[in-house]
Amino acid sequence: MKKNNIPTRIYLTEDQIPTTWYNLRADMKEKPAPLLNPGTKKPVTVSELSNVFCEKLAEQELDNDTRYFEIPKEVRDFYKMYRPSPLVRAYNLEKALGTPARIYFKYEGNNTSGSHKLNSAAAQVYYAKDQGLKGLTTETGAGQWGTALAESSAFFNLPLTVYMVKVSYEQKPFRKFVMETFDAEVIPSPSMTTKVGQKILSENPGTGGSLGCAISEAVEKAVGGIETRYVLGSVLNQVLLHQSVIGLESKAAMSMIDEYPDIIIGCAGGGSNLGGLIAPFMQDKILGNNDPRIIAVEPSSCPSLTRGVYAYDFCDTGKVTPLAKMYTLGSSFMPSPDHAGGLRYHGMSPIISKLYDDGLLDAVSVEQTKVFEAAVLFAKTETILPAPESAHAIKQAIDEALICKETGEEKVILFGLTGTGYFDMTAYNAFKEGRMTDYIPKDEELKKEFDKLPKL
Amino acid sequence: MKKNNIPTRIYLTEDQIPTTWYNLRADMKEKPAPLLNPGTKKPVTVSELSNVFCEKLAEQELDNDTRYFEIPKEVRDFYKMYRPSPLVRAYNLEKALGTPARIYFKYEGNNTSGSHKLNSAAAQVYYAKDQGLKGLTTETGAGQWGTALAESSAFFNLPLTVYMVKVSYEQKPFRKFVMETFDAEVIPSPSMTTKVGQKILSENPGTGGSLGCAISEAVEKAVGGIETRYVLGSVLNQVLLHQSVIGLESKAAMSMIDEYPDIIIGCAGGGSNLGGLIAPFMQDKILGNNDPRIIAVEPSSCPSLTRGVYAYDFCDTGKVTPLAKMYTLGSSFMPSPDHAGGLRYHGMSPIISKLYDDGLLDAVSVEQTKVFEAAVLFAKTETILPAPESAHAIKQAIDEALICKETGEEKVILFGLTGTGYFDMTAYNAFKEGRMTDYIPKDEELKKEFDKLPKL
Repeated sequence: MKKNNIPTRIYLTEDQIPTTWYNLRADMKEKPAPLLNPGTKKPVTVSELSNVFCEKLAEQELDNDTRYFEIPKEVRDFYKMYRPSPLVRAYNLEKALGTPARIYFKYEGNNTSGSHKLNSAAAQVYYAKDQGLKGLTTETGAGQWGTALAESSAFFNLPLTVYMVKVSYEQKPFRKFVMETFDAEVIPSPSMTTKVGQKILSENPGTGGSLGCAISEAVEKAVGGIETRYVLGSVLNQVLLHQSVIGLESKAAMSMIDEYPDIIIGCAGGGSNLGGLIAPFMQDKILGNNDPRIIAVEPSSCPSLTRGVYAYDFCDTGKVTPLAKMYTLGSSFMPSPDHAGGLRYHGMSPIISKLYDDGLLDAVSVEQTKVFEAAVLFAKTETILPAPESAHAIKQAIDEALICKETGEEKVILFGLTGTGYFDMTAYNAFKEGRMTDYIPKDEELKKEFDKLPKL
Repeated sequence: MKKNNIPTRIYLTEDQIPTTWYNLRADMKEKPAPLLNPGTKKPVTVSELSNVFCEKLAEQELDNDTRYFEIPKEVRDFYKMYRPSPLVRAYNLEKALGTPARIYFKYEGNNTSGSHKLNSAAAQVYYAKDQGLKGLTTETGAGQWGTALAESSAFFNLPLTVYMVKVSYEQKPFRKFVMETFDAEVIPSPSMTTKVGQKILSENPGTGGSLGCAISEAVEKAVGGIETRYVLGSVLNQVLLHQSVIGLESKAAMSMIDEYPDIIIGCAGGGSNLGGLIAPFMQDKILGNNDPRIIAVEPSSCPSLTRGVYAYDFCDTGKVTPLAKMYTLGSSFMPSPDHAGGLRYHGMSPIISKLYDDGLLDAVSVEQTKVFEAAVLFAKTETILPAPESAHAIKQAIDEALICKETGEEKVILFGLTGTGYFDMTAYNAFKEGRMTDYIPKDEELKKEFDKLPKL
């Protein structure tokens, strides 16, 4: 029977905000491959990582055993300003599709930073401040992470330098203005402020930059700075750990209405939202308590899971980071500049990569025109204008709901609505006016990148 | 004793969304002066108004007696997508100010339209659809109303034409793109599509337009269209009626935590948010059940309450609307183009005007640089980047909280946080870079406008 008496928005109470993050690695039967020091090719240690990350985060990064990490009181207090986020029943989307499926989304765009990135930003800034550091550096692509980090840095009063991919810096001045309003210094990348930036600029004077290149600059700046560390908004184990609040809240809220998802869908760039959303459900799957289908949705223009290789690679273009074993398109892969929004990272979270390699989750890639079509339908029916990134999950949720329409199955679909599209109106306009195109990299193009992967 | 065990966000449950709107006029001892037909100078009738507004709305506009109007089920279902909105305890702002006051804000920016305007937009579109109309016209200044109306029109599937003040149309292309994403037709005003637009353009070819002029065009288009009506996002009695959900929810949420505001603060342009927020509290005041201090905050560049006259005036520049008795700066008053954001309407809601004239509420005007200073402090402490309009209320709330710091009084302050500032980053940037200036109209300038008021 279709449950129609469920509230549209299901809110946990404040005292139901998780008090611990859940570390999925503790329950994985095979652990993700360790990060390697690119010089020695040996697993990196906490001490080595502590040059780049603050200590607590270095520990969290390498800890495959501790199942729960206590969320510091200061971070919980920060979370209270925008959490718990709502779990929403998409009644109007269901109606528009005529599906018997019940569609839910966990809405993380419900804060001014506009995305889920704030969950890890607050944690990372807090630990840095607590360690007595004097500054942070980071990179941002579409700008969601930079915005979230700027807000957190302003709140905890810690100086922040953001290397913003130049093409975004130029196309999205408003994103820059937001970060600057929160006192962040925003530098277009590649820049002359770092050696790696100087090198890239001398080789490609006209380049619009890339996320991998901005990472290289931010890391160099952090390692060279005084009591300065680097922070990253995705890919890392620590980030997925912090983002587990999304999944923990989702599971608790679904349990309140006596539901459990048959299908869980998340968009996947570096894996921060997907990893957080699925964590407690994947635990159920690994422990044999339940068997939801879990789907990662990536853009066809940057298809690391569906067309990449599972190999050790650098996390950045400049090759200054440790090596991570992940699904990758190669650290010098550049997605088409025509691709709108984020999800343009060459690799994928080592945790997600391992789960995918173990067959515990599925992956699909979708073309952006189809994604925006889904986004507009969603906006008109549910009144939320989604971020293009999030709309990848919407597209897949719609497809699954339409399959249910065919089969008559009343499946429960849960997807992550990671953010809003306020800063992506240029892309929405291009779609509306029919100027948006799709881009699928050719096999030869990918092969060329794979040939450049580091040899171990 | 300072209550520190109150949750940061207080949510009502879905079944606590009001089932009726509250019509403050029913409890006002003296009613607002009636709208007059500018030809006959007699009070307009429902039948006359029904040429401009759909019937139900014309009835609501003129009904001074019905205390509660049932909210149609379809509108309640729409509300469920984003209501109840949270009442938030601004713990971090209190801490930053070091005030013993308890500061609460009702947060209406919690939906994709980004403001409280959606509350009336959904109602107005629903009634138009229910009457079988074929289209709607409206105007928008800063863009909040147009966005909310476009979302509602897309949801209820009714064509919409928006006349957007030209200077905003040019400065805020993203606002336009949002409306277009929701299938609205957006026309910069003044335009050649109406007689009044043609006239204004012939007299002032280079004009950037004004809200009053855009209203004239939208009304002309509606009256001349087939089964088309005009809708307005502020000033009107019907709008304040719909916006009473803000106040009803606020009062219910405060009651849940055993609080009652000593001071209630709202920003005031046309009065839609202020009128909605204060409605049930003003009822208490009128009936002698309680005596909160109520404060309207307007920009010093467009000070209709604090420096205007209480007189009959046109609601638009083109003088096509009925005459309303209100505090006004004159229907041809144009606020400085340097003024950022909304709140640039020449008049004030007849209800608010009457309450102010009766001494039931206070009004203050503030300069925009001070407003942005407050906005940035709020953003950094509460992580919400406020709309410049809303920041007028924040500024006053901060001032009141600082007085409490002096006196040691633990007052309870409630203000309306009407929206977010995502589309106002140009203004934030100007403030950040010290390029923002203040503008206060000279007495002579205002006097010239007052001399032009219609003679009755």
